Amino acid sequence: MSNSITAETSGSAGLLFASRISVEQVEEGFELAPKFDRDGLIACVTTDAMTRGVLMLGYMNREALELTLLTGEAHYWSRSRQVLWRKGSSSGLVQRVVEMRIDDDQDAVWLCVSLSSGIRSEPASCHVGYRSCFYRTVELKTGKLSFAENTKTFDPKSVYGDAPNPTLL
Amino acid sequence: MSNSITAETSGSAGLLFASRISVEQVEEGFELAPKFDRDGLIACVTTDAMTRGVLMLGYMNREALELTLLTGEAHYWSRSRQVLWRKGSSSGLVQRVVEMRIDDDQDAVWLCVSLSSGIRSEPASCHVGYRSCFYRTVELKTGKLSFAENTKTFDPKSVYGDAPNPTLL
Repeated sequence: MSNSITAETSGSAGLLFASRISVEQVEEGFELAPKFDRDGLIACVTTDAMTRGVLMLGYMNREALELTLLTGEAHYWSRSRQVLWRKGSSSGLVQRVVEMRIDDDQDAVWLCVSLSSGIRSEPASCHVGYRSCFYRTVELKTGKLSFAENTKTFDPKSVYGDAPNPTLL
Repeated sequence: MSNSITAETSGSAGLLFASRISVEQVEEGFELAPKFDRDGLIACVTTDAMTRGVLMLGYMNREALELTLLTGEAHYWSRSRQVLWRKGSSSGLVQRVVEMRIDDDQDAVWLCVSLSSGIRSEPASCHVGYRSCFYRTVELKTGKLSFAENTKTFDPKSVYGDAPNPTLL
């Protein structure tokens, strides 16, 4: 199937992605043939190599996935800011890829990363200041939230200054 | 802020979801105020309480999220089949919620689950037969895939019979 690694390629890393030819190839094959959605994005769950918890759920466009593979540092597409986003470019909170996985139908990526300390912080991943973006638990039956992380690892104001908050209502 | 828990509610579990009023409420509050996308879905990453690895990345509509909270069993919205999907309804591979978390801007859910054995299988989560949907690693630089799980925990044919494969090209 190696001759299928041409049709859907683009950009600097043209040889990284294969065309999606068959269910068998996608599910049981050895070629990376990612499925980007109608916005050109693929979902990415990122876990912490140290705590083994989930840090964040982000999205990559083709370029972000290519750059992540080529540099070993997590890149995403920021949906709220609509820009390619090298994680840590403003905060210093870089994510170094320890392992990358792809799921059965290749429409989701799992990155296991090691976190670096930031310019003004302990290792963290969340713009609110916590290590993980998933810092709150949801109680079954009631839906009430409680904080699983009790202290922020950094002060967002001192790291991000007046940059717009990426959270959209 | 408790009086905001009415406007966006619907269905049997009307009291579970709050309206999204402010960034502060969404990021730092105690109310579950999920953000569903233009298709009415929220992303859900599901991890394995035993192995601590990522099992799958799925999507929930409002009803699936409500049912997951109320029953303690994972429900999803199948995008390929366009139906509400109680995980395990045909395979017996039920996911019991150990912990649910929500992320900073409340547009992603993290479920930590315990897997039950299926009708004809060991505990598993993936329709291809592996424990995790993320059974393949992606090599940095080259994008080549290799199998992190080497043996299937069940034979999909004996569990799903002739049901259509959910993988879309």
